[in-house]
Amino acid sequence: MDNTNNKKSLSEVSIETAYELGGHGKRNVQILIEALKDIDGNLGSDMYGKGKVIEDFQDQMAQHLGKETAVFFSSGTMAQQIALRIWSDQKEVKRVAYHPLCHLEIHEQDGLKEIHHIEPILLGEKNRLIRLEDVQNIKGDIACLLLELPQREIGGQLPDYAELEAISSYCREQGIKLHLDGARLFEVLPYYQKTADEVCALFDSVYVSFYKGIGGIAGAILAGDKDFTSQSKIWKRRYGGDLISLYPYVISSDYYFQKRVNKMAQYYEEAKELAGLFNQCHGVTTMPAEPVSNMFHVHFDVSAEQLEPILKRIYETTGVRLTQHLRNINETSCYSELAIGDLYSEVPKDKLKAAFQQLDEEIRLLL
Amino acid sequence: MDNTNNKKSLSEVSIETAYELGGHGKRNVQILIEALKDIDGNLGSDMYGKGKVIEDFQDQMAQHLGKETAVFFSSGTMAQQIALRIWSDQKEVKRVAYHPLCHLEIHEQDGLKEIHHIEPILLGEKNRLIRLEDVQNIKGDIACLLLELPQREIGGQLPDYAELEAISSYCREQGIKLHLDGARLFEVLPYYQKTADEVCALFDSVYVSFYKGIGGIAGAILAGDKDFTSQSKIWKRRYGGDLISLYPYVISSDYYFQKRVNKMAQYYEEAKELAGLFNQCHGVTTMPAEPVSNMFHVHFDVSAEQLEPILKRIYETTGVRLTQHLRNINETSCYSELAIGDLYSEVPKDKLKAAFQQLDEEIRLLL
Repeated sequence: MDNTNNKKSLSEVSIETAYELGGHGKRNVQILIEALKDIDGNLGSDMYGKGKVIEDFQDQMAQHLGKETAVFFSSGTMAQQIALRIWSDQKEVKRVAYHPLCHLEIHEQDGLKEIHHIEPILLGEKNRLIRLEDVQNIKGDIACLLLELPQREIGGQLPDYAELEAISSYCREQGIKLHLDGARLFEVLPYYQKTADEVCALFDSVYVSFYKGIGGIAGAILAGDKDFTSQSKIWKRRYGGDLISLYPYVISSDYYFQKRVNKMAQYYEEAKELAGLFNQCHGVTTMPAEPVSNMFHVHFDVSAEQLEPILKRIYETTGVRLTQHLRNINETSCYSELAIGDLYSEVPKDKLKAAFQQLDEEIRLLL
Repeated sequence: MDNTNNKKSLSEVSIETAYELGGHGKRNVQILIEALKDIDGNLGSDMYGKGKVIEDFQDQMAQHLGKETAVFFSSGTMAQQIALRIWSDQKEVKRVAYHPLCHLEIHEQDGLKEIHHIEPILLGEKNRLIRLEDVQNIKGDIACLLLELPQREIGGQLPDYAELEAISSYCREQGIKLHLDGARLFEVLPYYQKTADEVCALFDSVYVSFYKGIGGIAGAILAGDKDFTSQSKIWKRRYGGDLISLYPYVISSDYYFQKRVNKMAQYYEEAKELAGLFNQCHGVTTMPAEPVSNMFHVHFDVSAEQLEPILKRIYETTGVRLTQHLRNINETSCYSELAIGDLYSEVPKDKLKAAFQQLDEEIRLLL
């Protein structure tokens, strides 16, 4: 074993013939250079939300999502807070509902509460999806329910489509707006066997991202009816999100959307194959057991401190990096998140097989 | 006179040998392509505010501005609202003071009020600078005074440096934080004959922009002490401004900062020369009479409707576009804003002379 690598973290270990299971590759400036390679330098910048470059992409995404209008944002954080604020203002009810591990609850420094003074009702439990009965059992009025498809923090789980339809119907009957956190919407369409606009038709407002499965640099679309998006543009200005030029993100979002939106079925099949390989190993299980998108979590019955040296040895032996980040669940188990992109299909099958054989053997010795 | 051009707006008229008085040229994608041309594609993206590309630039700007730390933002709107919120929270006083034509008051859809519920005191009058006595006469406590150098909406005027120092001293004595809206800070340094850090030393927090005189794509720096910038990062996350990747703006801000920060003295001298040419024309005056930065306003004693055909004829005869946008002040006068950049020195002197001769002659006929 290499002493140098032993001191390095899992993400720092690097050898020349490196293969990654997840992702599209390095997030470096080449991603932007590639997106610009066929763009005419004479193309004019957008100007504070106006101009061909931004309006064309917004129109294209509105059509793709089956909504009247769409607005480009540099971030989903900004777009989603604004969506919930608009629905809260419209109903004059400053309460919304979402999952306990919703992005707004755990990753945004309480922006929704600090900026909008909106009270979130945490529906259901941390370790499972929101169910229809959770929505039916909400005490008091709410303006909006946010659903995240797939629910990222629990491995990218999805409700049955019938339950999703039932929740949507219930919300319409009750006058509750339904907002889609579709950060990974494109990634779930192969499992649902639906088009984006079919899924979005169940929702009043929709956010999608261009740097998850799509693999762009940053950027988001917020879509809905004209009155909704008009109000969102006022808030975008208030937030300082209405930049004089958003085209670096617009152009790259468009480029990688075109490049990858039709590859989601491939990523989904590969995710199922890869989850199968993990599940064959002793002391390893995936969540969900069979992925319903390009992502899943892998749970290991050993701690991160025990697993890291094993993963480093596998990397050195086979050139395959199974994962870059491990998080402990408790003293005897840890997990990792994987999201399949362009890199998985580049891993030679024999090296993949060797890596999993070694993983199985080495974990067995610890259990 | 060309009938086709007659129907076009001033900004639409286009002939091949076009010269512009203001600006650095077209805001098109070439601006980004140029900034990337010497960048190694292997340079890694910043990740949520971390990483060499963003941290190096922040360190460089902190040093340039003479502040302990600096944080990169995609917009000044976001950066400045956050600055005022931090100072308001620190003092537990939700009142700040600024000029009646402050960017926060007229261009941000009342973000400061809607997001932070901070009450702005409008100091002085719309048509003049804030004076020391305005600050001394504020009734009640305020957390922060925002000064914009130069005051853009009144032609880019500046207080005498001694008055600026007196305001700064008074604020320190009174426990009022002083924030610099330095959207055009680099542009005023030649007039003040000061370095950026000398001016910034008068202020507790500083915002500078990279797409005004610097001519970048978008982007801003907020600088101050460590406690201040740490808090600003929390708000940046809340606003959805803490993007996974800001490098398209960081790299271009850095590139155009290096390219133009030392050209401000040239732009300033050229602005004084150009203002002189306008002031020699009948019925034309500049504000300020002698510019104190690269910018000034031109006031015409005719309406925009009267002046537009004249400007179009000048453009067709000489190839010099004196300005792209006119705004009426009232029925018999209008004004235009000019900010000198790289283009002015490219205008042939004979064409420039011919253009101003024609302007003088044609306006005389109307008065």
